[in-house]
Parts: sequence; C-alpha cells; structure tokens
Amino acid sequence: MGYVLAVDGGQSTTLSVIAKTDGTVLGAGLGGPANHLHQEGAKERCKKSMRDSLNGALREANLGKIKFEHVVLGMTGASELMKTLIWEVLREYVDEENFQFEHDSVTAWAGGTGGKPGVVVIGGTGSVALAVDGFDNRARVGGWGYYMGDEGSAYQIALQGLSAATKSYDGRAPKTVLIEALIDYFNVKDLWDVHKQVYSSEMDRADLAKLSKLVGNGANAGDKACLEIMSSAAHELALLVIAAANKVDFKGQTPIISTAGGVWKAGAPIWEPFKKEVLEAIPNAKVVKPVYPPSIGALVLALKGARVELNDEVLANIEKTRAIIERKK
Amino acid sequence: MGYVLAVDGGQSTTLSVIAKTDGTVLGAGLGGPANHLHQEGAKERCKKSMRDSLNGALREANLGKIKFEHVVLGMTGASELMKTLIWEVLREYVDEENFQFEHDSVTAWAGGTGGKPGVVVIGGTGSVALAVDGFDNRARVGGWGYYMGDEGSAYQIALQGLSAATKSYDGRAPKTVLIEALIDYFNVKDLWDVHKQVYSSEMDRADLAKLSKLVGNGANAGDKACLEIMSSAAHELALLVIAAANKVDFKGQTPIISTAGGVWKAGAPIWEPFKKEVLEAIPNAKVVKPVYPPSIGALVLALKGARVELNDEVLANIEKTRAIIERKK
Repeated sequence: MGYVLAVDGGQSTTLSVIAKTDGTVLGAGLGGPANHLHQEGAKERCKKSMRDSLNGALREANLGKIKFEHVVLGMTGASELMKTLIWEVLREYVDEENFQFEHDSVTAWAGGTGGKPGVVVIGGTGSVALAVDGFDNRARVGGWGYYMGDEGSAYQIALQGLSAATKSYDGRAPKTVLIEALIDYFNVKDLWDVHKQVYSSEMDRADLAKLSKLVGNGANAGDKACLEIMSSAAHELALLVIAAANKVDFKGQTPIISTAGGVWKAGAPIWEPFKKEVLEAIPNAKVVKPVYPPSIGALVLALKGARVELNDEVLANIEKTRAIIERKK
Repeated sequence: MGYVLAVDGGQSTTLSVIAKTDGTVLGAGLGGPANHLHQEGAKERCKKSMRDSLNGALREANLGKIKFEHVVLGMTGASELMKTLIWEVLREYVDEENFQFEHDSVTAWAGGTGGKPGVVVIGGTGSVALAVDGFDNRARVGGWGYYMGDEGSAYQIALQGLSAATKSYDGRAPKTVLIEALIDYFNVKDLWDVHKQVYSSEMDRADLAKLSKLVGNGANAGDKACLEIMSSAAHELALLVIAAANKVDFKGQTPIISTAGGVWKAGAPIWEPFKKEVLEAIPNAKVVKPVYPPSIGALVLALKGARVELNDEVLANIEKTRAIIERKK
C-alpha cells in the first residue's frame, strides 16, 4: 500500500494531510502561511511553512522519509514562484510527474462537488469561482483581488458593513445594529473610536474581512442594512458561478454548484438568495452544501492522481478518519 | 496696510498665499504634503512643507520676516499634532490669537459658497460635507476614509470602475469602455497586465483615485457602466449634503450648495443627478459651481479674520490678482 500527500494552503496556515491509498488518513500537520511572496523574507517563510506542515503530518503518521505516489497542493495565491519554492521542499518526497500544484479553487472545487462536474464559488477574504465540466474543461472567474474585484467576499462585506454603520451614524441612512456591533467588537465607546482601530497599522485586510461576521449576525437578526449587504453579496457570488458555468460545457450533465469559504457561515441570508439566482440561470443544476472541505478535496484529487478508484470502501475510509484533519483547523 | 496668509494643504502639496488686507494677492508658494503624519519622518516633512511654501510666497511677495494680521490654514488630515507642528513654523509670523487652523472642508466651504450660509461637499480622493448656517453652527458629515466611507469619492469611483471592467471581462456584466481605457492608461496588452500594475507597490490610493477620470470620460461618452457609477457617486455626494444640512439651521436663509474636489470635473454625468437630488430634498437651496477654489476660500477667511469687510473693492482686488495663485496649481 502506498501513500499520498494533500496540501491545503490558505491565508494563514498550510495544512498537510497524509493518507494511505485506500483513503485512510494517517496524519495531518500545520505550518504558517505560504503566500504573500512579495513580502520581505517570504520565500524562506513559504518553504518553512511547507516543511513544518509536512513534518507534522509525517510525525503524526509515524512515517520517516517516504516517497508519495501522488501529491496535490491547493494554494491561495498560487504562482510559478511558489511552485518552485515548494518543489524544492518536496522533491525528495515525490517524483516530478506526480507533483500536482494547483490554485486553491481547484481543491475547493474537488471538495465542494466531491470531484463531480460543476462549479465551486469561494467566498473567503477574496472571491473566485471555478467551473469544471465532464470534458476536462476548466474556467476560473473572478479572483481579481481587493482593488479590482473580490465582489461578494468577506472583505467586501466588511467594508460595506463599515460604510452602512458610518452612513447611519451620520444620518445618511436608517438605523442599523452595525454601529453597536462594531463598538462592542472593538470594545470602545463610539464609532469614531472604531475608526481609530480600523486605521491602526495592526489591522490588515484579513482582519478587516473578519468584520463580515458582524454583518452576517445582523442579517440573521433581521437588520435591514445587513440583509441588503448579504443579498448583494449573494448576487455577486451567483454572478461568478453563472459566468464560470457559461465558459465550460455542461451538456448532458447535472452540474453540482457548491461553495467554500467563510462568508457562507452567515447561512440563510446569503444562501437562499444565492441558490435562487443560480437555479434561475442554470435550472438543471444541483446547488449543494460542500461535500468536503478543500483539504479533503485535495486528498480526493491526490487519490485520483494515484489512480485510486473512489469506490464506497475508499470513501468510507476517508469518512472514518477525516477527524484527524478536522481537529487541526 | 497689513498682510494676511492663507494656506491650502492638500494630499500632495501645501500652497501658501500672501495678500494685502485690501485683497491684493502678492505672492504664492508651494511645498510638499503636510499630512500622513503616521509615516516615518513625516513630522519633519510637515514642517518643511510649510516652511517651503511660506518662503516661496514671501519671496514672490518680496517680503522679509513680517507679522501677519491673520493666518488661516485649511488642511487635509487636520489634527492637533499637525496644528502643533505648523504652529512651530508660523509662531514667528503671527500672534497666537490670529492663528486659525481648520480642516480643509472649512476653506472649501468658504471658497465654494463665497463664505455664505450653505453646504460644500468635497469629492476628492476622499469625501466629506460641511454645512455652515447663518447662526455660526457647523456640521461635518462623512470623512470616514477609504475603509469606512468616502462614498462618492474619486477613490470609490476608481474602484467601482475597476470592478466594472473585471466583471465585463469575465462575462459577469455587459461590455464597457473601461477595459480598453484601463489597458490604454497603463499602456499594456490585457486587463491582467493592468492587474499587475494596480497591485505593484508603486501605486498608492491617490494614484488609484486618478483612475476615476477614466470613469468620467466613459460616462461623457455615454458608456452605461460609467454612467451608473457616476450617478451612484452623485447620489452619495447628495446624501452627504442633505445629512449635513439637516444638522444645522437654514431657517430664513437660502443655503448655497457648492462643491470642491476632482470628481466634479466629470461634469454633467455627476453634476446633473447631484443637483436634482439636492433640490428635491432642499427646494429653497441654490446649487452652484464653486465661487472660488479652497485656496481663495482660505484667503476670504483670512481677510474676515483680519476684520476686513469683503466689499466690491476687496473682491475686485482678489479677482485682479488671483492668477498669481492659480498658476501655482
């Protein structure tokens, strides 16, 4: 029996998962972020993050230096430079033809749809959609970043929430729970104190994106401003799905439409308008909650790469052992 | 005859203007920016900018070390720290009771309305409105910055333009001239090359805000996406005016509503919907193009501070000599 390695590289952590080729997860390990390669010292950090997460997984799996039958990486901010850096770490562990380096949208798709033809839309700090049909066509839409796009992302939801709060505070818009929610969140007295916090150099875009949770909470409590922001985000995420679907060929297939990322935690206020708009545009689609998280999506692809048939037994082995991965999160 | 000093401190320059108390402008001088005081070395830079612009104006006016009867500063990013730094430079030139340090919205208001009761709305890199009634009540609305507000600003227009271009490129939105306009502006081949430029470290928020001009051009050429962005900006700027007006007391007065900042250069596509919405909310208002730019607004306030009556002769002297200021811009 051989082994595969699946890597899920996000904004803040790198997660490595080692499984046997029968689907049994043996170990998982965490490292720091591998992206933001333009920052000083980031190249060394990228390699260290990869090494840390791999070594953690090897330790937990009780494995020494082995060769993997296949390796799949799904990386936020994937680039040729990142691929080169990570290959330098992994070259001892896998042959080059079995080293599969992908954007995180690919592993999100494999997780979200269970590897079936369809579209995944990521609503995280940023936003992007990937469609993959049954004829091996792929189309990626969005992913333009915080200045040029990221419509429907947690970052955009957070900015819209901040704007709704200031407009309400000024008397430019009706009351919203967001003013109190922001004041509570930062544990200050007034919205101008929130202003000081938001512009302090300790807050970066990922920190700002976390404020989207307040908008989700407000929407679930029935706040009108929050509901409007979530339904506008749902519309943007649906547009990403529809545009991606239009670029591939789902003829004769039932596309699975699924999701990844933190914005979906808001539940019904984003899910319901999203589902409605997608089904109006693609009536034969199945809009589903993610079958697996992206980390298991990467594992599914790694098993496929190792020519493992994903039969009931393999899927049952993944189910039995997936807690090993989930407790790392 | 005495002298006054008027200072207009913006995002990129500090402009000092020296005039006689009969309104005749004698000289003007430019220095660097005085704001962004959180940056390294910015305190010294702030003082140097003030000193450079003052010395330039003194040289052009052929004046040595004099005492001004009154000094008015209208500064972007005005703060207590900035006030202290600038006072250190100007204390030799003016008595403390004649040193009037204001936010740039105040000099924009004095310029826009000619110092009459009313509201000015600044649509520059950021956005803010100031209402001043005939009873000395002042209300400032907006000015929350690029994360929490700045609705209707050049920066927001630019971001919306970038988003419209990427959505069109992806097939998420109809065609827009913005794709070609951006490709031309950056002199590249494709919108993904624009992406590289936008995220290069050489572009800051003020540079991004300049892209709003492309949206204005597109709107004037009849592009639907651009027209929508400009009319949405007009709505946001009208909301700022209306909220500010509601916070003061214009009873028995005809409020003058005027403007400052670069976004108004787009002309009819922003001006017409703005005027319509303001007049619907404040039917007795007069919506006018700015009487003076903020630099002359500062001069008007400086003359008022020196107890000069702004009669026809003084206003005529300003008119005759204002080219001295304008050729510095």
